[in-house]
Amino acid sequence: MRVKRIKTNLISFKDVRVRFSETDNLGIVWHGNYVKYFEDGREAFGREHNISYLDQKKNRIATPIIKLICDYKLPLHFGEIAKIETTYINTPAVKMIFQYKIINSEGKLVCQGETVQVFVDFNGNLHLKPPPFFEAWKFKKGLL
Amino acid sequence: MRVKRIKTNLISFKDVRVRFSETDNLGIVWHGNYVKYFEDGREAFGREHNISYLDQKKNRIATPIIKLICDYKLPLHFGEIAKIETTYINTPAVKMIFQYKIINSEGKLVCQGETVQVFVDFNGNLHLKPPPFFEAWKFKKGLL
Amino acid sequence: MRVKRIKTNLISFKDVRVRFSETDNLGIVWHGNYVKYFEDGREAFGREHNISYLDQKKNRIATPIIKLICDYKLPLHFGEIAKIETTYINTPAVKMIFQYKIINSEGKLVCQGETVQVFVDFNGNLHLKPPPFFEAWKFKKGLL
Amino acid sequence: MRVKRIKTNLISFKDVRVRFSETDNLGIVWHGNYVKYFEDGREAFGREHNISYLDQKKNRIATPIIKLICDYKLPLHFGEIAKIETTYINTPAVKMIFQYKIINSEGKLVCQGETVQVFVDFNGNLHLKPPPFFEAWKFKKGLL
Repeated sequence: MRVKRIKTNLISFKDVRVRFSETDNLGIVWHGNYVKYFEDGREAFGREHNISYLDQKKNRIATPIIKLICDYKLPLHFGEIAKIETTYINTPAVKMIFQYKIINSEGKLVCQGETVQVFVDFNGNLHLKPPPFFEAWKFKKGLL
Repeated sequence: MRVKRIKTNLISFKDVRVRFSETDNLGIVWHGNYVKYFEDGREAFGREHNISYLDQKKNRIATPIIKLICDYKLPLHFGEIAKIETTYINTPAVKMIFQYKIINSEGKLVCQGETVQVFVDFNGNLHLKPPPFFEAWKFKKGLL
Repeated sequence: MRVKRIKTNLISFKDVRVRFSETDNLGIVWHGNYVKYFEDGREAFGREHNISYLDQKKNRIATPIIKLICDYKLPLHFGEIAKIETTYINTPAVKMIFQYKIINSEGKLVCQGETVQVFVDFNGNLHLKPPPFFEAWKFKKGLL
Repeated sequence: MRVKRIKTNLISFKDVRVRFSETDNLGIVWHGNYVKYFEDGREAFGREHNISYLDQKKNRIATPIIKLICDYKLPLHFGEIAKIETTYINTPAVKMIFQYKIINSEGKLVCQGETVQVFVDFNGNLHLKPPPFFEAWKFKKGLL
């Protein structure tokens, strides 16, 4: 019997250098700024795997974030270079799920998180079925 | 039989006005900026209930956030005034847990979330027992 | 001979409380965050004197900032409440000029600055004459 | 007669990609975020020319910004990659002056600006003479 092997997750890496303005009173990256790093990771993923915010806009679709989770393990300091590992989690739901790991220069896990996005049109109506551009992308990537 | 009645949660309210710089390309508050609103709510709670970041600093203790959750329900737009409801969730664990609801001017739930904080000394060592200032605060507030 | 006395400047005051996330590694407000305070001051001015960003949008006009100057005198710390004094500087040029003073709780000048804005339509074309809504506002305020 | 030729300015280049979170309601980079780009440029300069914030900290010196000027010429949009040109302006004054040009991908000038920094010790006292580490740096760079 042949088993259909599907690649269910895609991954992308992006380095970020901690900005001075991202640190706080305690000398470490302010916890809210990790949300920017997640976005950096997601955008780098989009560029690498050809699914971008701009594509969405062209298709008159927005993909607002409906859930954010962030678990903090270790601090990051000014000047450190961290690696963001962004993984697309394949799901039959009409959603885009990304998971993130932020790794410091010693290879230690600093933070991990997840975002969930849905599809809405420019009038704010939720898409209950995957928009065609997204189906096409999943097909191309072997995710269907 | 007497039952010990303890007030287990404390609550605080704070209004925020959406800044222009907090909105994004889609004309709504960028999702990462809700983390600032949670912090505004937590600080307002601290001022109202006498447990502040500055107290912590005086006691040479920092309270880093180890977990952040945020569920987004509706967008907020530039100029809107939103109410942040911050609730301290009492726990025997050596942690501070806050839950947040952000309510728009029509009384609708825009976002809800949670943060978890731990206690560390200025060398970064985790406190495994509640620091005395925190025990004193809980006692005073009827939370022990 | 009667001399026409015109009130040439308008002023507005707004308090801001320094957010934790606005401070940096040095424990003071990161210098770039004063730009947000200027915006807070400008928006408060607009609400008080009835000239708002939303009016501009309704008139299909945007008022991008073309110049920003900021002179820093003293630091601001987490938790401090500062007063922003925003002054509209009347000018015959087709511009909006605001000057700002940020005063700490001891009444000392922390920072002063200026912004200059022009009028553009939604295609990005510069208005060479004052848009009617702005002329009407100036007339009403005795600034013509 | 021999004329002493001194190299009076040093320059550094750094690319930045516009983050989604840096854009505003108008779909362009919010004007206050250019201050971050200037800082990115200044830090890149420091890494290239061996004069860093961390050196300053090691020497127990801080270099707060006392003046910021920014002239805006053109907007930047989400996803654009801009080049920051940072020039150190040599001066006999006990100051560090940097000038910035931000250039878009079409080679057009988007923004230019300047920052001025002074030297203070960790008690907040202004240095009236250049600190030794700074003199050493200038000497090494042929700026004395």
